[in-house]
Amino acid sequence: MTLPHTMTALVQTADGYVDTATGPHVTDLAPYLEHRDLPVPQPGPGQALIKVHLAAINPSDIHFIKGEYGQPRIKGAPAGFEAVGEVVAGDTPLLGQRVSFYATGSGTWSEYALTDAATLVPCRPDLAEIDAAGLIVNPLTAMAMFGIVTKSETKSMVLTAAGSQLCKLLIALGRDNGVQPIGVIRRAAQAAELRALGAADVIVAADALPLDQVQAVMRDLKPTILLDAVGDQITADLFFAMPKNARWISYGKLSAQSPKLDKMGQLIFQNKSIEGFWLTQWMRQVGKGEIAKAFAEIQARYVDGRWTTDVAGIVPLSAAMTDLPPLLAQPDGKAFIDPRQ
Amino acid sequence: MTLPHTMTALVQTADGYVDTATGPHVTDLAPYLEHRDLPVPQPGPGQALIKVHLAAINPSDIHFIKGEYGQPRIKGAPAGFEAVGEVVAGDTPLLGQRVSFYATGSGTWSEYALTDAATLVPCRPDLAEIDAAGLIVNPLTAMAMFGIVTKSETKSMVLTAAGSQLCKLLIALGRDNGVQPIGVIRRAAQAAELRALGAADVIVAADALPLDQVQAVMRDLKPTILLDAVGDQITADLFFAMPKNARWISYGKLSAQSPKLDKMGQLIFQNKSIEGFWLTQWMRQVGKGEIAKAFAEIQARYVDGRWTTDVAGIVPLSAAMTDLPPLLAQPDGKAFIDPRQ
Repeated sequence: MTLPHTMTALVQTADGYVDTATGPHVTDLAPYLEHRDLPVPQPGPGQALIKVHLAAINPSDIHFIKGEYGQPRIKGAPAGFEAVGEVVAGDTPLLGQRVSFYATGSGTWSEYALTDAATLVPCRPDLAEIDAAGLIVNPLTAMAMFGIVTKSETKSMVLTAAGSQLCKLLIALGRDNGVQPIGVIRRAAQAAELRALGAADVIVAADALPLDQVQAVMRDLKPTILLDAVGDQITADLFFAMPKNARWISYGKLSAQSPKLDKMGQLIFQNKSIEGFWLTQWMRQVGKGEIAKAFAEIQARYVDGRWTTDVAGIVPLSAAMTDLPPLLAQPDGKAFIDPRQ
Repeated sequence: MTLPHTMTALVQTADGYVDTATGPHVTDLAPYLEHRDLPVPQPGPGQALIKVHLAAINPSDIHFIKGEYGQPRIKGAPAGFEAVGEVVAGDTPLLGQRVSFYATGSGTWSEYALTDAATLVPCRPDLAEIDAAGLIVNPLTAMAMFGIVTKSETKSMVLTAAGSQLCKLLIALGRDNGVQPIGVIRRAAQAAELRALGAADVIVAADALPLDQVQAVMRDLKPTILLDAVGDQITADLFFAMPKNARWISYGKLSAQSPKLDKMGQLIFQNKSIEGFWLTQWMRQVGKGEIAKAFAEIQARYVDGRWTTDVAGIVPLSAAMTDLPPLLAQPDGKAFIDPRQ
């Protein structure tokens, strides 16, 4: 295959970090990105070049382009972490194959992306592009965190920001494996969908927790795992309302609040604990076999319909600067960029 | 041995709990205790009656009589958890022997106390009464928590309220086992004593942390365990200043503050965690052999001088209602009650 010398991409206009923490929301991309041509990157040792079919957009992408994520921006490099595409060059036996991947070398909001060849995930032919585009960040996090839930032997788990794509995967995993999910959301409109998906109960907490409902559900379902993407005072109040041995596992920080620990005695006398989950750390700890097994299960779940991808919409790369912000503002579903258009 | 029918004790005047959290301080015992006669309790199956020689007073005793501890007060029952004495009746082969014990049946601020016979700790003849009186709450907690420190393989540990009797035991354990203790105290006057005892560094934090010193010591000694008896914002700030993999282990709550978690991302990206330690829970988890081994080491450490008991003073039971509060107000050393006077 002959590769072109240049490609089009959404390119970062700033380096490094900012000091703010405004969250994964954006109304205008112009301060962070520009749509322009640049040279197609060349794969180095151990790297693979992928022609991008479809890139899935996650909250972490928005955190990142704003300079608020755990790794620094690089001015002049394409943005975007996750995508599906075809391997077109590089140090890998997967040349010519369709793969899901997480870009570590050059971003996915681009016609071509670069990543570590060892991390490519070959896709089953019957896996839809829309599922393959976002096979890693949410699905692997869901599998990894649900592994913690299973190991803990709890019969129920609490999920904050339960309307997220990730939590929908977790709710389905709970439903299929006898762990009753309790979803906590801010907008009552999402409750019916989560119940239909398999949530045993849904708590609507716009500004404060409905305490009677919370106490009843904690008593009935006895959840001892709280998977938390928010990190606000409502999360802390939920944690302290949970039964003994409860573990608050933080994997995201959608809120800018600093939660107060106003019942610390529960850590001592009720054996409660607070910890974090980071997919990168998890991948370092587990073996390659466990990760490969997780990706096989992830693909099987999408193909047989136990998991589905909610699509908010697909924007052509050429129109993303204007069309992406309104798509991201939709309350439900995942946004994608198609760099072939 | 013929036992009397009645005894004198400091008896609780209220039941259950209060809603306050004012801490282990008391200026007047009259709202909580009265000095009076009551029948000598009779040991039931599995119980032992002990003639109390000397009772050691811990902060948890004061929490308890005020109704602010993790177990309910019982109106009409003697207060006091810990003591040394002679077994005078009950279901035990230790009849006539000197034992250290933690009272679960009837309190130790009394001529006679009642507890589970299985938990009696026989004392070496060369163990001083003053050491034997407080052999459990602080020393066993120190041994158990230092076991966590050793298992973590950290080379340094941070101790809040480092001037406490418990922390002095921990500092000596660190000194003797190659784990550098960093003591955090409120009163600069205690620093020299802690350094002499073996503290690698002492941080004086009256109202806020000295940030330059904290950053330097965290960088130099890399402590990953924080053993915390305070639970205030200074503790939280220390925790977030510690290196990655730091564990905040809460075993007490001297402060009424609710610390804010203002850097929750560290739980995710730096693998930090917050948990509790409760001796009762630890004793349920470990085997009897491990506890017996710990008590052998505890007694050896007191007898050979690696540990010493700082004595604030001993008050006769008959004068405790008036003389105990001023003794407890002394900044250093342990207070005792002698029920034989």
